[in-house]
Order: sequence, then structure tokens, then C-alpha cells
Amino acid sequence: MKNLLLASTSTVHGKPYLSYLFEALQEHFKGVKEILFVPFARPGGITHDAYTTTARKAFSEIDIGVKGVHEFEDMKMAVRQAQGFFIGGGNSFVLLHDLYKHGLLSLIKEKVENSIPYFGTSAGSNVAGPTIMNTNDMPIIYPPSFDAMGLIPFNINPHFLDPDPNSTHMGETRETRIIEYQHFNTTPVIGIREGSWIEVKGDTFTLRGTLTARWFVTGNETVELPTGTKIEV
Amino acid sequence: MKNLLLASTSTVHGKPYLSYLFEALQEHFKGVKEILFVPFARPGGITHDAYTTTARKAFSEIDIGVKGVHEFEDMKMAVRQAQGFFIGGGNSFVLLHDLYKHGLLSLIKEKVENSIPYFGTSAGSNVAGPTIMNTNDMPIIYPPSFDAMGLIPFNINPHFLDPDPNSTHMGETRETRIIEYQHFNTTPVIGIREGSWIEVKGDTFTLRGTLTARWFVTGNETVELPTGTKIEV
Repeated sequence: MKNLLLASTSTVHGKPYLSYLFEALQEHFKGVKEILFVPFARPGGITHDAYTTTARKAFSEIDIGVKGVHEFEDMKMAVRQAQGFFIGGGNSFVLLHDLYKHGLLSLIKEKVENSIPYFGTSAGSNVAGPTIMNTNDMPIIYPPSFDAMGLIPFNINPHFLDPDPNSTHMGETRETRIIEYQHFNTTPVIGIREGSWIEVKGDTFTLRGTLTARWFVTGNETVELPTGTKIEV
Repeated sequence: MKNLLLASTSTVHGKPYLSYLFEALQEHFKGVKEILFVPFARPGGITHDAYTTTARKAFSEIDIGVKGVHEFEDMKMAVRQAQGFFIGGGNSFVLLHDLYKHGLLSLIKEKVENSIPYFGTSAGSNVAGPTIMNTNDMPIIYPPSFDAMGLIPFNINPHFLDPDPNSTHMGETRETRIIEYQHFNTTPVIGIREGSWIEVKGDTFTLRGTLTARWFVTGNETVELPTGTKIEV
């Protein structure tokens, strides 16, 4: 059974990295001693090593070891032997580019379809969807495709932001951008706010955390989903 | 001599579409009776016709006619015969995708290199640079490349936004995104705030409007450029 935890953000304001998710992660990775971390998204351009150190430190709080996939000469073998995955946030284009470059995209997908637990934050959640077309990131590198893992039947817009009613800025709001997307695409999109996550158990998709989320289906009115909603596609 | 006016935004808060630029546009398009409008970026997914109507209405205030490129059966011929170009804002991915699809990218570039005046706003300014890698837009369609017209030797980040010091949002700031870009690319980037534009006369690039702009060169400290600066690349 597929088992994914897809978070809007790694960090909520004022709390240490991942700490708001520790309880959920303990449950999610129950029985897993070590996970494979994919640091490709490199937030702020940090190195794979530095990023892995950050992830390792956080997971040590819940007694789970972390290996960076880049530490292995044979990355594919590392994926095949992994007992759990964590794909960290950063830039979705860089992440997807590197997943293709190293031939890991379909391999990770296959493992997760065969019940290996997957945890993603931000860009790492985004690539679990059918495409990265609802990322907020800058296209700083050209990936061979925008197609991602398709482990869930809808796209994720992480760090979803409501419009600021006092803003004088004329750039598009997040909602406007997603509605533009719907003129060209029919895959549904969920905008998840910082502090929310999607729990995937087989084909059941549940909104978790304390906040509501925004749900965009082409041709329908955009709706606000309460936490606990089982998302029907 | 190349002659471009590349604006951060079509509209500043509280003023009608393009109106803050009317004076500059009259000078820019001096002697031109009619311009060719490229509505491909379709802000909010509006139709090419509706977008062209908006542009036509604004330019009628300064007695310049507007034809939409989509109104021509032979778009390439329309480009070849144009006396001026206006490429409007919206989604940079959709714009670039359609410029490639209709084979217009290199044609427009060639005309502008041969002194036909070019006016761009937002996405229309972005595609004048070497690549669209510093757009803020969502990647809602996959273009055959991120390479754009390269009419100027640096990329444009339109609608440049300073970080909000009171924000609790954990998504990346604009500056962080551009600095991530610099880890992978060496083309300089200018972040132009709403109300600013770049005036291009041959190989002279001048910051216009009342605001400063942010200038990013890989390996250097990011600097703030006063209006009137001649940008040296």
C-alpha cells in the first residue's frame, strides 16, 4: 500500500526544521531505522552534504538515521535498497532535473508503489504529483520534462498563500496563477498552506494539520477543504 | 540601432493600464502609426482578442493603432511588415511556447536588431533577455527551451519584490530565488520594481522610472542601482 506524507513546508515560522512533523513522522516511518535522503533541490544553493547534515540532525531527534543518496557511488542501488525516502525542498526544477539525470525518478516511484514510505517537503511534495507545473520556484535549470512521479492523481502547490488585501503589488496572486494553469490543464491542484500535509494511504488522500486547503478542479468553483477531508479525485 | 522599452509591469497600482508609460511610449514609437501586438501570454487566461482590445484601447490614447498578431493568417508576414512590437505580460511559459510554436521568436529578434522598436511589459520584457529563467510565473506549459530572444545581455526579473520584514511565510524571497539561479548560471539579472523600465538604445541600457533596481552578478555582491544608471555588463 502506498504510504506518503507530503508537506507544504519543512519549517513553520518560529520552530526548528521539521519539528512540527516529528509525531507524524514517527508514525509514518514506524519500524524504519534509516531513510534515504534526496538533497537535489538544494535550497539557497547549499551543497548536498550540508543539506543532508541538516536532515540527519532533525531525524536524529526521532532516532532515524539518514543517508544522502549522493553519498553512494551507485545511486540506483541505494534507491533499490532504501527502507524509506525523504525528498527535501528547495528548487523543483533542479530537483526534477537531477532525478532524471541520475535515472532515479521511475525507480523511486516504483519503490513507493511497493509500500516503501515516502516523505516530501515543498519541492519534494511537488514532484510526487503528476507534474511540477504548480511549483512556485524559478525555472533556473531546464529539465527534460515537467512530468514528475505521478504517485498521486493531483498536483500540489506548496506554501500556498492567500492574497494580501492591503497589497499594491500588481504581480499575479497564487490563485490567479493556478487558474491560469487550468486554462491549459485538467489535472486538479491542491494549494496547501504552511503547516498542512497530505497523508496518502493507498488510494486515500487525507488533508492533515490544523489548516484548510484550497482545491482547484478545472471547470468547477475553487473550494476550501477543511482539515481531515478525504480528497476525492 | 536597437530600440527597446522593457517595463516591469503594464500597470502601476491605482492607474489605468499602461498610462504611467504614455509619455515614454510616445517618444519610443515616434513616427509609428500602428504596432503589432503579441497577446500570447494571456494574463488570467483571457483570449487573444480580449487582450488585444485592452492594448488597442490604451494605445488609442496616444494615437497609435494596434493589430493583434493572431489576427493574421500569415503571422510571419505580419512580423516582417511590423513597424513596432508590443509583447504584453501574462505567463512567460505560455508566451515563449507560442513564440516557438509559430516560429516568431527569431523573426521578431531579427526585426528588433534592425531597429524596429520593441515594447515589452512583464513577461514581454522577460522574453527579451537571454532566457526566461528569472520569470516569476508558474510553469503551466512546457516550452521547447527556456532560451528567449537575447536582445539584451542580462535577464529581467519583472515585478521585483523586496522581502516583507513582517512576513511569517517560509517560501523563498525573490532575492533568494535569484541567488539560487546564480549557483547554476552566470547571466546577470536585473530585478526591476513596478514602475521601472529599461531603455535600450543600441548597446546602451538605462534604468528609467523613479525607483532603484536590484542587480545580480554571479560572484559579486548584489547591488542597488539608482534610476538613470547605465547598466554595464
